[in-house]
Amino acid sequence: MLPAVAWGVYFGEHQAIGSLLASMGISLVLGITLMVIFRGKRADVGPREGFAVAALSWIVLAGLGALPFFIGGHIPSYIDAYFETMSGLTTTGASILTSGGGAERTDIESLPQCLLFWRSYTHWLGGMGIIVLSLALLPMLGVGGMQIYRAEVPGPTADKLVPRVRQTTKLLWGIYVLLSLAQCVLLWVHPNVSLFDAMCHTFGTMATGGFSTHSASIKYFDSAYVDVVIIVFMVLAGTNFALHYAGLHGRLKAYLKNGEFMFYVGVLAGAVLLVWAVMASRMGVGGALRRAAFQVVSITTTTGYTTANFDVWPVMVRLGLVVLMFFGGCAGSTGGGIKHVRVLLLIKHAGIELRRLLHPQAILPVRLNGRPVKDRVIQSIQAFVVLYIGIFVVASIVMTGVLLIWPASMAPDGQEVTSDTVMVTAVSSVAATLNNIGPGLGHVGPGEIRGYSWVPPVGKIVLTFCMLIGRLEVFTVLLLFVPWFYR
Amino acid sequence: MLPAVAWGVYFGEHQAIGSLLASMGISLVLGITLMVIFRGKRADVGPREGFAVAALSWIVLAGLGALPFFIGGHIPSYIDAYFETMSGLTTTGASILTSGGGAERTDIESLPQCLLFWRSYTHWLGGMGIIVLSLALLPMLGVGGMQIYRAEVPGPTADKLVPRVRQTTKLLWGIYVLLSLAQCVLLWVHPNVSLFDAMCHTFGTMATGGFSTHSASIKYFDSAYVDVVIIVFMVLAGTNFALHYAGLHGRLKAYLKNGEFMFYVGVLAGAVLLVWAVMASRMGVGGALRRAAFQVVSITTTTGYTTANFDVWPVMVRLGLVVLMFFGGCAGSTGGGIKHVRVLLLIKHAGIELRRLLHPQAILPVRLNGRPVKDRVIQSIQAFVVLYIGIFVVASIVMTGVLLIWPASMAPDGQEVTSDTVMVTAVSSVAATLNNIGPGLGHVGPGEIRGYSWVPPVGKIVLTFCMLIGRLEVFTVLLLFVPWFYR
Repeated sequence: MLPAVAWGVYFGEHQAIGSLLASMGISLVLGITLMVIFRGKRADVGPREGFAVAALSWIVLAGLGALPFFIGGHIPSYIDAYFETMSGLTTTGASILTSGGGAERTDIESLPQCLLFWRSYTHWLGGMGIIVLSLALLPMLGVGGMQIYRAEVPGPTADKLVPRVRQTTKLLWGIYVLLSLAQCVLLWVHPNVSLFDAMCHTFGTMATGGFSTHSASIKYFDSAYVDVVIIVFMVLAGTNFALHYAGLHGRLKAYLKNGEFMFYVGVLAGAVLLVWAVMASRMGVGGALRRAAFQVVSITTTTGYTTANFDVWPVMVRLGLVVLMFFGGCAGSTGGGIKHVRVLLLIKHAGIELRRLLHPQAILPVRLNGRPVKDRVIQSIQAFVVLYIGIFVVASIVMTGVLLIWPASMAPDGQEVTSDTVMVTAVSSVAATLNNIGPGLGHVGPGEIRGYSWVPPVGKIVLTFCMLIGRLEVFTVLLLFVPWFYR
Repeated sequence: MLPAVAWGVYFGEHQAIGSLLASMGISLVLGITLMVIFRGKRADVGPREGFAVAALSWIVLAGLGALPFFIGGHIPSYIDAYFETMSGLTTTGASILTSGGGAERTDIESLPQCLLFWRSYTHWLGGMGIIVLSLALLPMLGVGGMQIYRAEVPGPTADKLVPRVRQTTKLLWGIYVLLSLAQCVLLWVHPNVSLFDAMCHTFGTMATGGFSTHSASIKYFDSAYVDVVIIVFMVLAGTNFALHYAGLHGRLKAYLKNGEFMFYVGVLAGAVLLVWAVMASRMGVGGALRRAAFQVVSITTTTGYTTANFDVWPVMVRLGLVVLMFFGGCAGSTGGGIKHVRVLLLIKHAGIELRRLLHPQAILPVRLNGRPVKDRVIQSIQAFVVLYIGIFVVASIVMTGVLLIWPASMAPDGQEVTSDTVMVTAVSSVAATLNNIGPGLGHVGPGEIRGYSWVPPVGKIVLTFCMLIGRLEVFTVLLLFVPWFYR
């Protein structure tokens, strides 16, 4: 929280500095207490402990990270503050802050600058966490992480987990910092972008987070240059960082030879073209391309920045964007969602099963980057997607249940809300949090000035859980809920 | 079409009899022509030909079955007549007939009785087709059919496909006819149900179809007795017919020992309880139970009969019913959807993958009915579900595109339709046809007096295709679209 304190000093925000310092104190005391208790006790850390650490660290860090908002009363409800911080650390970007709402709500632009910085900074820290996680955790899920590095990148090979993970992490963090620096400078050179805004929006972009310091999100800058810089860096942030390692070492062909990256770029290009085609007659050829590219890239990479209220676009685009939410980034990126490599392998596998109907005895392995993929990996991916969709469905029904119990919550000023809008809102709120996007449709859409603030507390807890479960690749969190995990 | 002619004679509907006879003539000429052309030519029938025959026979039979509606001008558009007949033969029950619509539309109750009979009779014929299909086709897809009979039922074992399929088909058709007779008698004994209505609604129930001879569907009879009879036979029709074979031979334990059946009953019971809990405060304890049980069973078994407009029920129930649409019947039943056995195996497999995270070396097979299920079967099911969901998503986006091009089509009398209603309508129309249900939500819901008649022609073609692809277990139809199928 120290960088946030520095900005607080710069802006002279004494009360917020107090909140930050108090939160630092509490965190420090907790940390030292834990250290004293567990000092000298060294257990063997196996997969079980690894999974528990991953899930618990996100849960606890969100609890501590929420303190600066809560202590000074800037976000009066601790559930709200926790929601906001979890949204930051999971690089979701769903916000309970409002955009010019009533007096009883907290407006984005009314928050002290140093707390806005802290809010964006949680994105960046969360992004760093995800890079370690994808190195340590994804290999166990049979996808991404090490496997991909091993297969693709001649540089940081990683055959054994423990000895190399530290070294590889440092390399990838280096790339993360380097790209962040580059984006920050590129934004800062624009006359309308302050260093503060450049930093905060870099954090939001590189972590595929989506928190902005302005109610209007990226539309605030109203600059094609800023749009393009952010589009490019969103694409880069959604790409496997191991590819950037290869790219920075001059092996640009690594991008082209990577099946996932080519699929990712193909999906992005195809979706931009389609949305452009639909929108061109509505907002002009140039404007439509700029808006379509921004929204498609923002949603697909699971960033969630907006330059237009896509919720008022034609239904085909709205539905298409929700589908893109599930594609997510590439494995080994900071993007959320199912990940392109999983979608690609499932499609390839389905195609092979189709062939196998006519040639039942043929041996037809799924291939990625020219190499056969093991059946075990395919099975693990399929189980992942089944659980992912299962959680999406169950959480959506739970959210409709929450809105059934508190029907008035979403009605602004007693307006009537149609049943269809409730459904679209409930389902898209889960899609937007589970996939770590941020904005959804309907009353959680980019046009909703109340953001997620109107969601009943129980709903906020459900959505917070969705963010966590999506970010930690489902299995990690689910394991905590099965009794045999504790045996 | 002869039974329909008989009813025509009984009701004295001369014009409609003419249409039926003309259609019979055309079908006969076509049949004889094909017989003459292919006479004496006997090719080896392999999987390739089997798949082609399955898909083509549904496509051609719907084309001929549509003639009686079209020739006499009772359904003036051939696309509409084809939609209606495909909906019949695939046991979907989605109808372009209206319920008291304007003069330019065809009302259900304005159709001659003998054509209403023919319409319901297509359900029953389609149900017979599905029973053969599940014997001949499902085994190749690694689920249901033979495997299930072999594993479960000591009676009609079927180790080789060709020699036994005829015998087993006859046995299962016998059960189908027997259950149909039983239901028909049970309905007919009710004073308000004519023999005509008893037959037509038996066809709709046993085939899990859903066409009614009345605009108000089963609500027309307004009888708890009729509701209960239809609920019971919907549940039976959605059950694996091989279990009924065992049951009729006194082996009632076969039901209890069957994992899929117990899962199916559990899902039904759980969903009824949940809907009942939500609705009890709205329509009284007894009424809510009756309505909840009917709607849940009707949707889950993919029948589509209604006794209440569930589209005006709370969002939680509406969404829950859409989810149930995908569960569908059991394998080896006349029900559509993904089938419970597939859902069950996917859930079990996901649970095992979760365990495997902590014990990567353990060998943990998925078990069904106490026996391990081969990895090949699981993989085939997973590919099926991936394709199924993929088609659902793509077809939904296509439907929103259709409604984007013809926006006025769904607006009754120029009313404005909200973007959210368009989305709910488009998505649920695909869910309701792909899963062979019939009614969806919004403008294809049970409360829409125009039925599917308002859907633009291109949309009707898309939905007709969804019915077919859902009914023929996806792979069969998709194969026709891959170039290497014709090599």
